[in-house]
Amino acid sequence: MNTYPNFDFQPTHQLTENRARVGLLSTPHGVIETPAFIFCATRAVMKGLSPTDMQAAHTQIILSNTYHLMLSPGSERIAKAGGLHQFMAWDGPMFTDSGGFQIFSLGHGSVAAEIKGNRSGNHPQSLVKMTEKGAEFRSYLDGSKHILTPEKSMQVQRDLGADLIVVLDECTPFHVDKAYTERSMHLSHRWAVRSYEEFKLHNNGKQALYGIIQGGVYPDLRKISADFVNSQDFFAHAIGGSLGASKQQMYEVVDMTMQILNPKRPVHLLGIGGISDIFQGVEYGIDTFDCVHPTRLARHGGALLRPSLQPEPHTKREHINLKNSRYQEDWSPIDPECNCHTCKTYSRAYLHYLLRAHEMLALSAISLHNVTVMNRLMADIRQGIKQQNLAQVKKYWLDR
Amino acid sequence: MNTYPNFDFQPTHQLTENRARVGLLSTPHGVIETPAFIFCATRAVMKGLSPTDMQAAHTQIILSNTYHLMLSPGSERIAKAGGLHQFMAWDGPMFTDSGGFQIFSLGHGSVAAEIKGNRSGNHPQSLVKMTEKGAEFRSYLDGSKHILTPEKSMQVQRDLGADLIVVLDECTPFHVDKAYTERSMHLSHRWAVRSYEEFKLHNNGKQALYGIIQGGVYPDLRKISADFVNSQDFFAHAIGGSLGASKQQMYEVVDMTMQILNPKRPVHLLGIGGISDIFQGVEYGIDTFDCVHPTRLARHGGALLRPSLQPEPHTKREHINLKNSRYQEDWSPIDPECNCHTCKTYSRAYLHYLLRAHEMLALSAISLHNVTVMNRLMADIRQGIKQQNLAQVKKYWLDR
Repeated sequence: MNTYPNFDFQPTHQLTENRARVGLLSTPHGVIETPAFIFCATRAVMKGLSPTDMQAAHTQIILSNTYHLMLSPGSERIAKAGGLHQFMAWDGPMFTDSGGFQIFSLGHGSVAAEIKGNRSGNHPQSLVKMTEKGAEFRSYLDGSKHILTPEKSMQVQRDLGADLIVVLDECTPFHVDKAYTERSMHLSHRWAVRSYEEFKLHNNGKQALYGIIQGGVYPDLRKISADFVNSQDFFAHAIGGSLGASKQQMYEVVDMTMQILNPKRPVHLLGIGGISDIFQGVEYGIDTFDCVHPTRLARHGGALLRPSLQPEPHTKREHINLKNSRYQEDWSPIDPECNCHTCKTYSRAYLHYLLRAHEMLALSAISLHNVTVMNRLMADIRQGIKQQNLAQVKKYWLDR
Repeated sequence: MNTYPNFDFQPTHQLTENRARVGLLSTPHGVIETPAFIFCATRAVMKGLSPTDMQAAHTQIILSNTYHLMLSPGSERIAKAGGLHQFMAWDGPMFTDSGGFQIFSLGHGSVAAEIKGNRSGNHPQSLVKMTEKGAEFRSYLDGSKHILTPEKSMQVQRDLGADLIVVLDECTPFHVDKAYTERSMHLSHRWAVRSYEEFKLHNNGKQALYGIIQGGVYPDLRKISADFVNSQDFFAHAIGGSLGASKQQMYEVVDMTMQILNPKRPVHLLGIGGISDIFQGVEYGIDTFDCVHPTRLARHGGALLRPSLQPEPHTKREHINLKNSRYQEDWSPIDPECNCHTCKTYSRAYLHYLLRAHEMLALSAISLHNVTVMNRLMADIRQGIKQQNLAQVKKYWLDR
């Protein structure tokens, strides 16, 4: 009997020179065309953008964070609202994580630093206490003690009611040794089984469960973990944990993992959102990405702009910083080819002025642009795969 | 020869029981149907709202503040952008003040406190140095010294390029005696003449000049000032200065002033924006109002809601505070009869949650609602005047 009767994934186009593919991922709240970018509405809101803004920017799917929502306003309250879709007025496909990611990153250091392997040198005493049962942690809001178990994560995610949900895992820190990584991976596997059992017990057909591949930067461990998720009745897979200290190492880890994963299931790459990284991930066969980068960048005045349109020729930068005084009398839009409301309405000079004046409109306007850019990027990538000219699309975005 | 060939004001409907009237105020950027509310886009931006949002909320006209813009980004830069309309992407009618209002309120105490005559008891040393020539003041941004003269105010407002502009006056403090108020009024009159002469010298037909009636709470002075503006070649009039210590006194000052002012010219009431105050002002014949209240209130979680829809019966409050914990599980919209995006999309509970989480979407969502309410209020008032049932409209809004 099919555990996921209301979900489906069908690859529709596949390149021959690499594993890049287009697919249709069906959920009860709509069909996502992949490769797709999942935007972070961390606390049940896209910072500064309404669901209508997100739709206008051609957004297919958003993500909220279980960790934040279980602490405030609490999953019971969201359940009373009729679930997260109702609560935040987003009617499209939605994804929630397990909550583990934030617990461990707030305990061990920043999430992004972990995934991307930035060695910060100092590793503060962990605020998380790990046991076989689950993870004990203190709330980032008021310091109150909580425990997150695989069962609890499933219960909370059921209350939230997102379409795509994730097993609880330990997001293994980067700075630990192989022995720790291996123990942690096996713990995550046991938690994955418990997550699935809890999920199965209450499965109402409205949610589909992702298993997570751990194993850090170690190919043999990644193989064990990929084999494990393949063997389980998950709807889809997510590549988690540390992806290494360099881009090269990240690409190698993703590449070798993707060679093992069951190609019939969609694969999500957790926490990666740079434009060039996305092209790389797509070529390895990744179907969905998420990252706070596009919207967090916007809140610091960074507007996504592909390298070919950068003021300095041959730069590898993927954004411009509108706070820079070079823009104070630049009357052009961020990107003359962009169709977003921001580029159709405001000059770089006006956005520069708003940023300097700490006017919140700057943040929502630049966020809208960045969301639009990411969605256009993914649409261009899908088109490139369909028309067998992904290399050209990549050239256009990265170094035309 | 007509000083204002591209401007016009035509009253189209007039009540008989009071001076309430509907009119058409034509500007180069469009026609405003009066009575109308002018929203404060203080620093060339509606906080958290785009021009598109403002249009969707049926906004006819907005106002920016000369004081803020002359200090940052500077009127020269806005002139380079092609003027304020172009700079901030607002294509409709626009109003700028003279800059004096903020100089004096930042020098003497809060603007609102002055207009509404709140006696604070302590009056800090003024930061403004008044001379016959103009007002010397220090920038609120960096403390740098500036001087604003009537000529300078006209030059800056010409650079900004709003449709409706205002002579420089001294916003007479509330706590001064009659002798000061009289001297100040005469100074304002001399400045008004200088403002007009500077305006006339460069008049390009794209702007129309408002004269200001001063005279504080003294009927004899208000009469002198109203006679003065009537005698000058202004397009329109604005009632400025202190309006007294109580609502009753404010109404009396406005009432007696309106009896003298030339009824062929539109009249603006500076800084008044409460719902009941607007009804009162309309009955005295006021054509336009402005106030930061609706949008500032929103930024503190206050959503405009007419008394009849208030949780406590018979309250005179004109808003609810969504930060209040009574709303944490209130799944209804702010106002079920409101057609704004906020009321069509979000529950009070969700807005409460966003406010508590300090999410900026709350501020823009509630601002949009409040702007919509003010525009609906003015539309209802105009309809009431046209259909000779303003009293019924007032009852509906204030105590149905």
